[in-house]
This record gives sequence, C-alpha cells and structure tokens, in this order.
Amino acid sequence: MAMEGYRGFLGLLVSALLVGFLSVIFVLIWVLHFREGLGWDGGALEFNWHPVLAVTGFVFIQGIAIIVYRLPWTWKCSKLLMKSIHAGLNAVAAILAIISVVAVFEYHNVRKIPHMYSLHSWVGLTALILYIQQLVVGFFVFLLPWAPLSLRAIIMPIHVYSGLLLFGTVIATVLMGVTEKLFFVLLSAYPMHAVLLEDRRGRKTHHSFPPEGVFTNTLGLLILVFGALIFWIVTRPQWKRPREPGSIPLQLNGGGNADGMEGAVAISSAHSMDPADAELSSEGAARKRTLGLADNGQRSTM
Amino acid sequence: MAMEGYRGFLGLLVSALLVGFLSVIFVLIWVLHFREGLGWDGGALEFNWHPVLAVTGFVFIQGIAIIVYRLPWTWKCSKLLMKSIHAGLNAVAAILAIISVVAVFEYHNVRKIPHMYSLHSWVGLTALILYIQQLVVGFFVFLLPWAPLSLRAIIMPIHVYSGLLLFGTVIATVLMGVTEKLFFVLLSAYPMHAVLLEDRRGRKTHHSFPPEGVFTNTLGLLILVFGALIFWIVTRPQWKRPREPGSIPLQLNGGGNADGMEGAVAISSAHSMDPADAELSSEGAARKRTLGLADNGQRSTM
Repeated sequence: MAMEGYRGFLGLLVSALLVGFLSVIFVLIWVLHFREGLGWDGGALEFNWHPVLAVTGFVFIQGIAIIVYRLPWTWKCSKLLMKSIHAGLNAVAAILAIISVVAVFEYHNVRKIPHMYSLHSWVGLTALILYIQQLVVGFFVFLLPWAPLSLRAIIMPIHVYSGLLLFGTVIATVLMGVTEKLFFVLLSAYPMHAVLLEDRRGRKTHHSFPPEGVFTNTLGLLILVFGALIFWIVTRPQWKRPREPGSIPLQLNGGGNADGMEGAVAISSAHSMDPADAELSSEGAARKRTLGLADNGQRSTM
Repeated sequence: MAMEGYRGFLGLLVSALLVGFLSVIFVLIWVLHFREGLGWDGGALEFNWHPVLAVTGFVFIQGIAIIVYRLPWTWKCSKLLMKSIHAGLNAVAAILAIISVVAVFEYHNVRKIPHMYSLHSWVGLTALILYIQQLVVGFFVFLLPWAPLSLRAIIMPIHVYSGLLLFGTVIATVLMGVTEKLFFVLLSAYPMHAVLLEDRRGRKTHHSFPPEGVFTNTLGLLILVFGALIFWIVTRPQWKRPREPGSIPLQLNGGGNADGMEGAVAISSAHSMDPADAELSSEGAARKRTLGLADNGQRSTM
C-alpha cells in the first residue's frame, strides 16, 4: 500500500533499528567486556542480566511494538493480526523486564543489600507494574472481541498516552540505572574516580574519564536517540495505518468509513464489522460526536 | 469561550500546578534543610543553585510554557500575545537553566573537579543547547512576522515534536541528577549508605533508607508526575486553542477558516491576515494538501 513520505519513513525506521541494535550491542559489551559477564549465580554475573534484559526488552522491543502498526508492508494484514503482534511484542518486553528485575532482587538478597532504596528502583518498578496493567487492559479491551465499542473509544486515548508515557519513563529509568551502576562500579574499580567524590568534599583533585564511563554514557545517548526516533515515527499522522479495508478478503475493517464522516455513519459501519477491528471507527465516531475533527488528533499518536 | 470537558481540564491543570509548585518547594527544602543552603561562593552553596534553578526553570516554567495555549481564558487574547507569553516563559526557563549550569561549572572549577564526565551532564548540556536553538528558531519563524507561511508549515510539526522531546529529556536529566547528587552526598554524609556500596562488593551489610534519600526520591516522583500531567494536557485534541477569531476586534485570526476546508481556501484566507497569526491556517492548508485530515493530528500535540 502506498505511503506518503515513504523514503523518509524508511530512513527513520532503519535508523531506529540500527540505533536500537547498537544499544543492545553496547549493553552486551558493557557487561561482557567491562563487567564480569553473564550468569545466574546470585552474584555480579546475575546482576548483569538486569541492564541487558532491560535495554533489550523494555527499551528496544517495546519501541518496536509501539511502531509496528506504522510499517506500511503490514497494512494489508488484518488489524487483528497486527494487534496480536503489538500485544505479543509488549508481552515479550514485559517478561524480559520482569526477569531483569528478578535478577536484581536475587542479587540483593544474596548480598543482603536492601531493596528499592534508589529513585531508579522506585520509578522502574512503578513503570513495570503499570506496563503490565496496560498489557492486561489492552488484551481484554482491544484484542479480545467482547469489549463494547464505546468502551474501546474511551480507553484508546488513555492506552496511547500511557504507552508513550511508559516508554519515555522506562528510558528515563534506564538512564538513571546507567548513572547509578556506573557510580557503584567506578568507586570500586577506579580509585581516581572515587577521588572525584572526595573533590566534592574539597580534597585533592584528579582528572579522569574512565573508558567505562565514556562507554556507558554513549550507551545512554544511544538509548535516548532510539526513543526520539520512535517518538517521531509514531507521532507522524501521515504514517498512520490507513483505515481502508486491507487486501485480505476476510478482513472486515470498515474503519475507513469513519474518517471525515458523521459519527452516526461511522457507528453504523462499525456495528457491521468484526468487533476486533472496529474500535478505530467507533473511536472516530465517539470522538467525532464529542470533538469534531479531533479524531485524527487522537490517532496521530497511535 | 466554552471548552469541552472544562472541569476535567481544570482539575488536571490545578493538579499540574500543585505538583509543580510542590516540586519547587521540595528542591528548596532539599538544598536548605538537607544540604548546605544557597549562595554564590564557588562552593556547595553555589552548586545548590543547580538543582533549584533546573527544577524551577527547566522543568516547572517550561511545563507551563508548553500548555499556555491551552488555557481557555486566554483564547480571547490575540495569538501574537500568546506566542509572546509562550516564548517569554521559555526564554525565562532557558536563562534559569543557563545560570544553573554556570553554577555547576564554577563549582567544578573552584574544586578542580573535571567537567562533563557524567551521562547527566552529557544529556543535560545537549538538551540545553537544543532548547536554546528551539527558542531562537521559534522566535524567528513564528513570533517575528516575516517568515513565509510555507516555512511555518514545515517547521511547526518539528517545533512541537522537539518541544515535547526536550521537555521529556530535561525531566530524565533531572532524575539522573537527583540520582547522581544523592550518591555523592550520601557517601560523605551517611557512612551506612556507603556500606551499601561495599555490599555490592560483598562486604558486611547494612539496611538503611537515609531520610534524604527518601525525600529526593519523592522529589523525583513529583517531577515525573508533573511531566505526565503536562503531557496529557497538551496532547488532548479537544483542549486545543480553537481557530475561530478571538473576541478582540483588532485580532485578525482567520485560522478558523482553515479547518476542514480546501488548502487553497485556507491559504488565501491566510494571506489576508496578520502574518503573526496566520501560521495555523497555512499549516492547516499545507498539511491538508499533503495529509488529508491529518491536520488535527499535528495540532493535537501543539
């Protein structure tokens, strides 16, 4: 299906994928080269799964899940299939995020380190709980066919907003985590960096940019750029999945009728189609009744 | 002028203001009660201006600047006036942010601490430079009357995207800064917290939540909630400043014609009005030519 500004989209998509892959490579190099490596021993090797799984699942896979509806070569696929892929990727991201948190809790237990004392942990665990809630709500309201269209119309804007907010919060959490971990390890690994702390207390000085610090800062920047690219791709209205029926005969996506039409028409067309595919037009209908043309505004962040 | 869901808007606005004020109060209590206080002595007192000005200017004032077009009681004011307020608030935020960075650099110079070694500093300075660039571009393209409407139509979506991205990045930077500063100070102030670090290296343990840690973590959460409220308010299409001409007779805002009309019409109406107020309809026109109804999608994040 034709897409407007297809080259621009492709360029940004490839950039996002590259930067995302690079972030995963960087976090792997971090734990394998600069740190102790990976393992499930209740020690440092186990802790190191935390950054790896957080960046791979909670940042990279979540980012891809967010833009999956935007891939033009999926526009011929049924909406139900795309929803399943969207939900599936988010589920994988959630599972990896949960394992990454388990790794830290086990590590803390073995080392008898108190849990949840850092801002990173407060924000991170809150984000994970809300992310799982978002996944469950999305599954029952949008993927299962039983939710009334009116409910979908109410939940969709919240779903879109929460999704983007959680993605941004997760990235902020990762940046805090990188900051935190770097301080811990550099204090033990680089005495001259510890002297930086003493400087804060006015003692003698040392100028040093430990290579690991520069490396992890670069990782942080890569994750930030990845987030910025996903945010741009997902907020371009011209790159939204179109509402026209796809080329698959069995797909009954009447959403195309909702655009720029009376709410009543959209609703009636909505009732005549597969409920699993209908929330867009019912959304359009509901919002047209209340917001005039604002429908596009909402979908622009889908 | 009537606004849809006015009560909901008012509730969220009041919440945002309260949480924003509370964040400023919290950062003041932090530096005045838990830290050494404020001053311009090249020491800790000067450093403490950094968090205070960053939270007050770069987070709170920037947040208000983002939603200023959404205040319904300003809809009767001219677009030019509102743009000036938007630009003015962002300028104040930028100035406070610059002073907050100067405070740190001076502090580092006096203490001979190396500059720019942390991820917080890398992201923060990048965000500040891009924020100033955004301010300058916005001033010349949107506030001054000379920019051609076609240029405004091209820049506006980038301006809106960059504004929200920078706001989110600044909040992430503040969370990193809180994390970082807390580690520095707790290491010197709370030996038992320093033992936390040793735990990481497998030494004997200590369970402790220093009050300052809990307090600054709460500050971090407040800033995050403030950002979430601003993000919700600014992305609700139904709360956009309407395009109808305001009640001030001298205001020539023909933008109202742009909505749901042919681009040509919007363009012609745009040319007949105060250029400073015209970009919305020209925007609408430009985007309608290219994106169909996507116009609303764009404005939904304005």
